[in-house]
Amino acid sequence: MIKPGHSKWKSKLHEIIYEADTPAGKLFDVLLLITILASILLVMLESVPSINNKYYHFFNISEWVITILFSIEYILRIVSIKKPKHYILSYYGLIDLLSTIPKYLSLIFGGAHALVVLRALRLLRIFRVLKITRYLGESNKLLFALKASKPKITVFVFAVVILCLILGSIMYIVEADADSGFISIPRSVYWTIVTLTTVGYGDIAPVTTIGQIIASIVMILGYGIIAVPTGIVSAEYTAQFKKTPTNTRTCESCGTEKHNDDAKFCHNCGDKF
Amino acid sequence: MIKPGHSKWKSKLHEIIYEADTPAGKLFDVLLLITILASILLVMLESVPSINNKYYHFFNISEWVITILFSIEYILRIVSIKKPKHYILSYYGLIDLLSTIPKYLSLIFGGAHALVVLRALRLLRIFRVLKITRYLGESNKLLFALKASKPKITVFVFAVVILCLILGSIMYIVEADADSGFISIPRSVYWTIVTLTTVGYGDIAPVTTIGQIIASIVMILGYGIIAVPTGIVSAEYTAQFKKTPTNTRTCESCGTEKHNDDAKFCHNCGDKF
Amino acid sequence: MIKPGHSKWKSKLHEIIYEADTPAGKLFDVLLLITILASILLVMLESVPSINNKYYHFFNISEWVITILFSIEYILRIVSIKKPKHYILSYYGLIDLLSTIPKYLSLIFGGAHALVVLRALRLLRIFRVLKITRYLGESNKLLFALKASKPKITVFVFAVVILCLILGSIMYIVEADADSGFISIPRSVYWTIVTLTTVGYGDIAPVTTIGQIIASIVMILGYGIIAVPTGIVSAEYTAQFKKTPTNTRTCESCGTEKHNDDAKFCHNCGDKF
Amino acid sequence: MIKPGHSKWKSKLHEIIYEADTPAGKLFDVLLLITILASILLVMLESVPSINNKYYHFFNISEWVITILFSIEYILRIVSIKKPKHYILSYYGLIDLLSTIPKYLSLIFGGAHALVVLRALRLLRIFRVLKITRYLGESNKLLFALKASKPKITVFVFAVVILCLILGSIMYIVEADADSGFISIPRSVYWTIVTLTTVGYGDIAPVTTIGQIIASIVMILGYGIIAVPTGIVSAEYTAQFKKTPTNTRTCESCGTEKHNDDAKFCHNCGDKF
Repeated sequence: MIKPGHSKWKSKLHEIIYEADTPAGKLFDVLLLITILASILLVMLESVPSINNKYYHFFNISEWVITILFSIEYILRIVSIKKPKHYILSYYGLIDLLSTIPKYLSLIFGGAHALVVLRALRLLRIFRVLKITRYLGESNKLLFALKASKPKITVFVFAVVILCLILGSIMYIVEADADSGFISIPRSVYWTIVTLTTVGYGDIAPVTTIGQIIASIVMILGYGIIAVPTGIVSAEYTAQFKKTPTNTRTCESCGTEKHNDDAKFCHNCGDKF
Repeated sequence: MIKPGHSKWKSKLHEIIYEADTPAGKLFDVLLLITILASILLVMLESVPSINNKYYHFFNISEWVITILFSIEYILRIVSIKKPKHYILSYYGLIDLLSTIPKYLSLIFGGAHALVVLRALRLLRIFRVLKITRYLGESNKLLFALKASKPKITVFVFAVVILCLILGSIMYIVEADADSGFISIPRSVYWTIVTLTTVGYGDIAPVTTIGQIIASIVMILGYGIIAVPTGIVSAEYTAQFKKTPTNTRTCESCGTEKHNDDAKFCHNCGDKF
Repeated sequence: MIKPGHSKWKSKLHEIIYEADTPAGKLFDVLLLITILASILLVMLESVPSINNKYYHFFNISEWVITILFSIEYILRIVSIKKPKHYILSYYGLIDLLSTIPKYLSLIFGGAHALVVLRALRLLRIFRVLKITRYLGESNKLLFALKASKPKITVFVFAVVILCLILGSIMYIVEADADSGFISIPRSVYWTIVTLTTVGYGDIAPVTTIGQIIASIVMILGYGIIAVPTGIVSAEYTAQFKKTPTNTRTCESCGTEKHNDDAKFCHNCGDKF
Repeated sequence: MIKPGHSKWKSKLHEIIYEADTPAGKLFDVLLLITILASILLVMLESVPSINNKYYHFFNISEWVITILFSIEYILRIVSIKKPKHYILSYYGLIDLLSTIPKYLSLIFGGAHALVVLRALRLLRIFRVLKITRYLGESNKLLFALKASKPKITVFVFAVVILCLILGSIMYIVEADADSGFISIPRSVYWTIVTLTTVGYGDIAPVTTIGQIIASIVMILGYGIIAVPTGIVSAEYTAQFKKTPTNTRTCESCGTEKHNDDAKFCHNCGDKF
């Protein structure tokens, strides 16, 4: 049997934690957002050796405070929801757990050697950032356009990778005898990706004439190929724009929408407009 | 009581300073534009040590001349306008003030140490450049498209920053032991931004195999992601194009729209326009 | 006279090798894909000196196994097809052959000097990758858009090359006396391509003031020019979208087209479909 | 009085030189194209010191041959055209002259010191390349789209330059004390252009924390801003596509084109279709 009072308390908590429409819910979300940003900043600053040496204790305490706050939040989320299992196994449930446990794990896996592991564990807290996306209700159209262009983008990325493999292998043969960093095919492929994507570090650069000619071709290729994903997203996004019904004609008999501009009869029930 | 003569003189001045339709107003604007460009050139040349040593006095005098000219212009702007408060607090009012005061402030904050501050104050005059935008009446459509795509671009930039934080942290762990510049998370994030935006300085570059594989993924990601803002702006701009009605000609007899610009008869009922 | 039994065996084999609709055919294709990927990985790892020294024998045996498997596949492809000549001279027939013979040729051209040649021959096996494209049925629209934009892209690439020639020559004159790597026109043109395509290695960079001004112009030019191929592909791809009829439903009574997919009545005459 | 025979000979020559529709005219154009390409290749190879030392005499003779051929061509172009003045002052007339005279000028300005000048003069022959554009009849639509987007692109380039000036100045203040190459505002502006256009040489790179933060903002800005020219060209090019009449309906009475698809009467003369 369910206690109505308890249920009411739970639903109130659910409203505050999961929704952002009430003032209390909004305040909670804003405070959570600030805490997440603060924790990310702490992790980043802690990784700077000079800063960490100075403020080690401050960082340690701050992290424990944030970890405990996040733990409480996690427990409250489980308590206030009707289907806790559903939440725990959801994308955000896992992220919430991952952003809480590293600090606790650092207690168990203590000792000198564990410190290296610790660093990696600590870093997992960066996933707290992903929580931020929860607060973005904007741009469903954009997501639809990206989803629609996903298979084409996949083919494109695949084609680019194959191209990089072939061009990298050719560069490996051409520049093999020159002392220019093309010491193996994987490294040559790495260079090709660096060049084709127009990043161009300059840590590896061709020195032979043929190498520079091929490099020029790779660059112009990369410069032109970038038009492909851009064209795909542009077209898909423009298409998303058009799908939005341009008129608001609704059949008075059956309520069907999306009639053509020049329609004289409803295409669903056949009634005259 | 208002003096009509004074008011006439004021309105004449307002016409010259604020408008560009009369010959006098146009001349004023062109002269102002040249002065602004000259002052920018002076600031730039002055910052080059070798040039500044040679022409120090010329620069000093020129800057005083320009500062005084700008001061007179600023006063005239306040005098000639009906609501001076409105102008002073407006975007251009503040820019006009900011581009005038630095030189005066350099008199008060004299001395050896103040010279460093001076340099910063001098540089504020670069904001004079912003005045130039006043002369651009072009491209309202473009601004509308950019405004319409602003929320989506914001989400995109936000997503890119989160991506850089996560990828930067991963690179920090991967390249931590190698002596390749990934000494802290902020620096790794900086590298990720440099790589993802396809800038690629090469001051920091991965040396480990895993690091180079992740770098390759970051590059291809950056190469593909650039399609998103481009797609957004393209689609919004194309949408702006369509919103513009080709004309608003409507047949008086049957009410049909979308007639060609040079149509003499309605294409639906054949009636003469 | 044709033996029906033999023909049936052949057609069964044809189904497995050339088609991917039956479970057996799909399994064959997936296994082939894995083998191709494995062979590419082997070629790449073999080129890394440190790895090759360790696992030389493993690589040698693995390559022989893959080569023999590919040879059997190639023979079966010829046997099972009705027009073997057509297959052998086709794009994939040649690629299949090229990805099989290098290892056999390495037996004939043995000896010390041949090893260099061998390396090149081995690398040809990278063309096996191209086989992968066979499994991509996606994105015909994209290919049509790319084909339609081919002549314009060609003109664009041509214009870019001419621009690079002229700008490269100008940079050669400007930076000739400075010790900044612009030692010949071809090298200056190479630098221009590196800069215009926004790759920017930094192995060659202008040091004179005029050189840096021209370089700035080249960069802004390159930054703006990239809009051209992108615009072409976007427009062509959007055009491809429009060409596709949403459906081909035509009213049998009045012949009106462009009915919605879920229309039950003609929107023009009201007749039931 | 005009001699008909001479005129015929002239018009025949005009046909060969200026047109590409007859076999003779086409052959002439192809040969000219090959000669131009050969001369460009010669200029490029000549600039490579090691090659020039070896084949100095071959280069000298080849250039004289090409110069004389171009001179003959130039004279024939003047002779065969009806309005020589019009040709000489035209774009191609000037280019043709500029690609012929450098070698002659090298005779007059002989001597040791003149050699440096000579190099510059020789290089002007690269303008022969521009002749190539004459043979491209492709892509009028593209040119229209580029012309239509010219004012917007100009505003965009202007805005980018202003942005670079301001950001460059800020970087100059921020990185002034660090030994990182930001020695003057012009150099800082140069760095900003290198970074904003995502070229990223790495010859100048920020070392201070604030500098790297600002650099990150510049990069993300540059990454996003590139969407603007691309969006403009895409939209204008798509608009060019639409301007093309979709139907070929022509009024039988008055011959007017571009009627709407559903027009029942000519919009020019009012006749029924």
